[in-house]
Amino acid sequence: MYLGIVIGNVWATRKYDQTKGFKFMFVQPLNAENQKIGEPIVAIDTIGAGTGEKVIYVTASEAVIPLPVDFAPIDASIVGIVDSINLEK
Amino acid sequence: MYLGIVIGNVWATRKYDQTKGFKFMFVQPLNAENQKIGEPIVAIDTIGAGTGEKVIYVTASEAVIPLPVDFAPIDASIVGIVDSINLEK
Amino acid sequence: MYLGIVIGNVWATRKYDQTKGFKFMFVQPLNAENQKIGEPIVAIDTIGAGTGEKVIYVTASEAVIPLPVDFAPIDASIVGIVDSINLEK
Amino acid sequence: MYLGIVIGNVWATRKYDQTKGFKFMFVQPLNAENQKIGEPIVAIDTIGAGTGEKVIYVTASEAVIPLPVDFAPIDASIVGIVDSINLEK
Amino acid sequence: MYLGIVIGNVWATRKYDQTKGFKFMFVQPLNAENQKIGEPIVAIDTIGAGTGEKVIYVTASEAVIPLPVDFAPIDASIVGIVDSINLEK
Repeated sequence: MYLGIVIGNVWATRKYDQTKGFKFMFVQPLNAENQKIGEPIVAIDTIGAGTGEKVIYVTASEAVIPLPVDFAPIDASIVGIVDSINLEK
Repeated sequence: MYLGIVIGNVWATRKYDQTKGFKFMFVQPLNAENQKIGEPIVAIDTIGAGTGEKVIYVTASEAVIPLPVDFAPIDASIVGIVDSINLEK
Repeated sequence: MYLGIVIGNVWATRKYDQTKGFKFMFVQPLNAENQKIGEPIVAIDTIGAGTGEKVIYVTASEAVIPLPVDFAPIDASIVGIVDSINLEK
Repeated sequence: MYLGIVIGNVWATRKYDQTKGFKFMFVQPLNAENQKIGEPIVAIDTIGAGTGEKVIYVTASEAVIPLPVDFAPIDASIVGIVDSINLEK
Repeated sequence: MYLGIVIGNVWATRKYDQTKGFKFMFVQPLNAENQKIGEPIVAIDTIGAGTGEKVIYVTASEAVIPLPVDFAPIDASIVGIVDSINLEK
């Protein structure tokens, strides 16, 4: 899983049926010190993450598991909203 | 999922049977500010995306789900055509 | 699999149900000479790895296998704690 | 999927049983302008691609689908031989 | 699949049960000219590859297939020992 921050969303009306009803969020990956790393990805949100919230997201095949359908062409999902990060100094 | 823009297509007559009938589109990945990032990938289109349209595409195992066959050696598919992007400033 | 060192953890109270009860650890990837490479990822720990321990972690679909549930949206898990590394000079 | 050019092959006599009988080809990834990008990968060929031919190859789990066996430890396969590339200028 | 050379191994006594009995080898990725590329990964060996041998390794879900168990949290396996590489000049 990866740490990221929700920076916005993407609106698409013409889309594949099994992705309808899900919100496409832009998530900027962050490192452990909250610095931006790489480019934003688009993840499905099923737990109510809002713009500006720090989240944990999952990629690859497992990303479809949070959805209430058996199969969907989804490869990134938000699975947790971060309360705190504890780093060994 | 990732944001991209369709920049063309690839024509292949000799190809693996289960990929016949699908269009191979060249998709240039974009970041949230619509700047090109990295190199184009080849994705299957099942929703009628045309050259010049901004799209959301999915990679990995889930890419085969939009296709009307059970199995196909496909690892990237267009799943939505982007209407707008909303970024928190 | 990859070599890494546990550098901390992430606390998330609002998270997807099937990830509850698992610890989200920050793991810094290391190369064979124990130098940091790339950015930390977030991995589930099921074998009791503590901060400061060197571990082997697995990514992608196989990461869910150590968990006592059939399906979970998990894409990185710690699978071993490193005793020693032997390199041919 | 990705665009590439076959640049050679790899010969291995001691190999895992389920990969026997397949040709291991070296494929150099190309971008849309036919420039080399990154390092070559090793892909299975099931459609008769020869050295010097431009191909589309698939990676990840789907790479095993073109093979006449149910399971094989294969993560890259050639799925088409490119006739032409059409780019919007 | 990728070309690499076995450079050593990793010893872990506390590890996830389903990975016991397998050797964790350090494999340095190589390009077609036998130059090192990127950082070593940790792969399971089931065909008897020794340190200093050039190998083909597979990643992702397919890496578990060479193992004599149905499921194991493994994402990289050695599937062949290289005899020769033939490149078109």
